[in-house]
Amino acid sequence: MASRSVTFPGGFRAAGGTCGIKESGRPDLCLIVSNPGTSCVAAGVFTSNAIVGAPVKLGRQHLQKRGGESFRGIVCNSGNSNVATGAQGDADALAMCQAAADALGCEASAILPASTGVIGRPLPIEKITAGIPSIAEQLAAGAQADADAAAAILTTDLVAKPAALRSDAGYTLGGIAKGSGMIAPSFAPGTSFATMLAFITTDVKLTPSQAQAALQHAAGRSFGRISVDTDTSTSDTVYLLANGDSGVAIDTDEQFKAFTRELTELCNHLAQQIIRDGEGATKVFAVHVTHAANEEDADAIGRAVAESPLVKTAVHGGDPNWGRLAMAVGKARRHDGVPIALDPRKLVLSIGDTVVYRDEVPIHFTPDVEQHLEAAMAGPDISFTIDLNAGDLQATWFGCDLSRQYVTINADYTT
Amino acid sequence: MASRSVTFPGGFRAAGGTCGIKESGRPDLCLIVSNPGTSCVAAGVFTSNAIVGAPVKLGRQHLQKRGGESFRGIVCNSGNSNVATGAQGDADALAMCQAAADALGCEASAILPASTGVIGRPLPIEKITAGIPSIAEQLAAGAQADADAAAAILTTDLVAKPAALRSDAGYTLGGIAKGSGMIAPSFAPGTSFATMLAFITTDVKLTPSQAQAALQHAAGRSFGRISVDTDTSTSDTVYLLANGDSGVAIDTDEQFKAFTRELTELCNHLAQQIIRDGEGATKVFAVHVTHAANEEDADAIGRAVAESPLVKTAVHGGDPNWGRLAMAVGKARRHDGVPIALDPRKLVLSIGDTVVYRDEVPIHFTPDVEQHLEAAMAGPDISFTIDLNAGDLQATWFGCDLSRQYVTINADYTT
Repeated sequence: MASRSVTFPGGFRAAGGTCGIKESGRPDLCLIVSNPGTSCVAAGVFTSNAIVGAPVKLGRQHLQKRGGESFRGIVCNSGNSNVATGAQGDADALAMCQAAADALGCEASAILPASTGVIGRPLPIEKITAGIPSIAEQLAAGAQADADAAAAILTTDLVAKPAALRSDAGYTLGGIAKGSGMIAPSFAPGTSFATMLAFITTDVKLTPSQAQAALQHAAGRSFGRISVDTDTSTSDTVYLLANGDSGVAIDTDEQFKAFTRELTELCNHLAQQIIRDGEGATKVFAVHVTHAANEEDADAIGRAVAESPLVKTAVHGGDPNWGRLAMAVGKARRHDGVPIALDPRKLVLSIGDTVVYRDEVPIHFTPDVEQHLEAAMAGPDISFTIDLNAGDLQATWFGCDLSRQYVTINADYTT
Repeated sequence: MASRSVTFPGGFRAAGGTCGIKESGRPDLCLIVSNPGTSCVAAGVFTSNAIVGAPVKLGRQHLQKRGGESFRGIVCNSGNSNVATGAQGDADALAMCQAAADALGCEASAILPASTGVIGRPLPIEKITAGIPSIAEQLAAGAQADADAAAAILTTDLVAKPAALRSDAGYTLGGIAKGSGMIAPSFAPGTSFATMLAFITTDVKLTPSQAQAALQHAAGRSFGRISVDTDTSTSDTVYLLANGDSGVAIDTDEQFKAFTRELTELCNHLAQQIIRDGEGATKVFAVHVTHAANEEDADAIGRAVAESPLVKTAVHGGDPNWGRLAMAVGKARRHDGVPIALDPRKLVLSIGDTVVYRDEVPIHFTPDVEQHLEAAMAGPDISFTIDLNAGDLQATWFGCDLSRQYVTINADYTT
C-alpha cells in the first residue's frame, strides 16, 4: 500500500509519469499543484554549492519576483539535472515552467522548477514540454497520485520517500524526497541551503516570511544533518507550498513554534529515508552531541563524526572503535571559523548506552562490556553520544556506513 | 640501497631498533640527535585536532620552555600513540624524554617526543626506557642509521619515507616521515598544525623564529596539502632540528626565502611519499588551483576536490567525470568562514592538458577528446587543473583514490 504524501493536505493534487528522459523508461516527470482557484505561499532552500543548475537559479528568481506569494505548484524532472548547460539551460528551465503554467492556466513565475540527474547534458526540453499536458491531465489527490509523483523524482534511489503528518491544530503536512548519493548538506545558520530534492505541501495558512523561516529551520535540522558522502550537490532544493486550505492560520509565536516543530518532524521522516537509502549503505548511525555551549558547536562535531571515513568504516565493520570517535570529535571545525568550545577533560563518549571514554581515558573494557559494545555495533541502527559537558544545547546527525559497494557504485558511474 | 635522510646534514646521528612494543617484533623506537657538544634550534608544528596525545602536549611544552633553543634530539616510538592515556600518559611521555636525556647527557626538556600507533592503551614505558640505552649506543651517521630510523617510526605504512637535499648555499637538509591512514592536514595560516610524523634535520644555522616560520610555511604547503581520508590524527607532529654544523647562517630575507623554498621542497618529497602510500591507494591525483584571488581560496578548493569521495571514486574508476570536479569546486569552503571569490562564469576545468568545462558548459566531446581524457585518467598519476581566472595566486593539493581496499583495511582494524 502506497503511503500518502503531497496530496495528504487538502487542496493539492499531484501526478507523475514518463516523458522519455531516462533511457530506462522509468518515470521522470512530476507536477505538484494547488487546486484551480487557490494559490500558495511558497518558500525554498537551495544548495550552498557555488555552482548551481538552471532550475535552482530560476526557482530563486521566481520566489523573489513574487515575494513568496501566489504560487500554483512545482514541476520536476529526473534523469537530467540541467546543470552546466549555459544559457540554453536557463531557457529550458523557463520553458519547463511555461509549459506547466500553460497547462494550469497561470504565469510561468507561479511555478517552481527542479531537475535532477546527469550533469552537463542539454535538457531534452521538447520531451518535457510535450509530456507536461498529459501529466497535468492525470493530476489527482490520493495515494496513487502521491506514489506516482514520489516515483517520478527518483534517480539512483532504491525506494520512494513519502511522508505525511496531521497536526492537532487542524492542518496537515505532506512531502516527498529523493536522494541517495552526492548527499551532504551544508548547514549555515541564516543562509539558504539544502542537499537533495524535497517537496512539501501543507494546508495551513502561512505568510511568506513564516514559510521561509520555518522551512530554513526545519531543513537545517533534518536534511542539514545527514551526510552520505560529504559531497554537496549543485541541484539541491527543498520547496514548501502552503495553500491555507484548512482555514487554520498561524497567529501566535506558540503556533509558529508548533508548526515549525511539525515541519521539522516531517523533514526528519524524509531525511531518515534518504540516509537509509544512501549509496552502498548497510547501516545507519546517529551522532547525538549533547551539552554543547551552542548549537553550532554541536552541529560541527556531529558533522565531523558522521562524515569521518574512519568512523564510517568502523561502523561498516561493527568495530566499537572509540579512538576514531575521539579523533573525529577533535578534528571538528565550524564553517564560520569560530573555535569550538571543547574541553577534552570534560568529554564523555558513549556507544549505545555504554560509556567508553571519560576523564581523558578509556573505561576498563571487561569481557562483559566488550560484549555489550559488540552488540551495540552489530545491528543496522547504531548510536553514538558525544557529551561535551559545556552547556545546554545539542544536535543529532545521521550518517551511513562506507562500504565496498559505495566504491563500486561510484567508480564506474558517470553522474 | 637505502636513501640518505636525517644524518645527511652534518653533525647528526640516528638509530632505530626494536624494544618490543609491536607484537610483530618490527622496529618501534628511534633516536635522532645532534652530536655531543652541539645543540640545535628546534621548531615544531602539531595537529590542529583538539584532542591530542601526551607527546604532542609535552613537545609543545619543551619548545616553549626552551624558546626553541638548545635541543639535542628527538625520541619516537611506534606501535602505541600514547593518546587518551590520561595523567599516566603525560608521565610516560616525560619518562621517555628523561631516558633519552640520560643516555645523551642532557636535560629531558632538550628532547622532543613523538609516538604513533594504537590509541587508548597505556604506553609500555618500561620497554621503552629499557630499550633507549641500547638504541643510543647504536647512534651513527650514514645510510644504515638513516634507514633504521626511518623504519622504526612506521605503523601501517608499506614503505619507509626518506628525503635529503643539498643547497647551493652550502648546507643540507634531511628528513623522514611516516603516514598512511588518518591523514588529513588542517591548514590554518598562522597557526600550528600538521598531519603525520616527520622529522627534519639541517646543518644550516637558524634562529628559533626563522626555524618556526620556515617550518610552518613549508609544512602548510606540503603535508598541509595532502589528504588520504580527511581524518586529522591526534598525534601529528613535524619537528625541525637545525644544528648550524655547516657554519652557514641565514642573514638576509633572500637567504631565508631560499631556505624556506628548499625546506618546502624537502617536505613535499616526504608528503608525496605519504600520499602514494595512502591506505588502499592505487592512484595519486594532483589538483592545481590557479589564478585564485588569494591563496586561502586556492587552498580550500584544492582540499574540497582532493577530499571529495565522488572525485576519489571517479579517479579509482578512471572515469573523466568533470561534473564531479565542478560539484567539488562549488562546495568548497574556507575554514575561516570568509566566502571564496569564485565566479562560475570564469571557471575553466581541465583533466590532464584537456579543457573539459569553460563558459559554464562542457566542451564538445569528440571521440578524439574522449580518447585523450581516458588516457589522462588511466595511469597512476592524474592531474586536474581548476582555473578560477580571479587573480594571481595558486595552490596544489594531492589526493589518492578511494578503493574497496581502503574499506577492507579500515572496516576490521582497531586503530
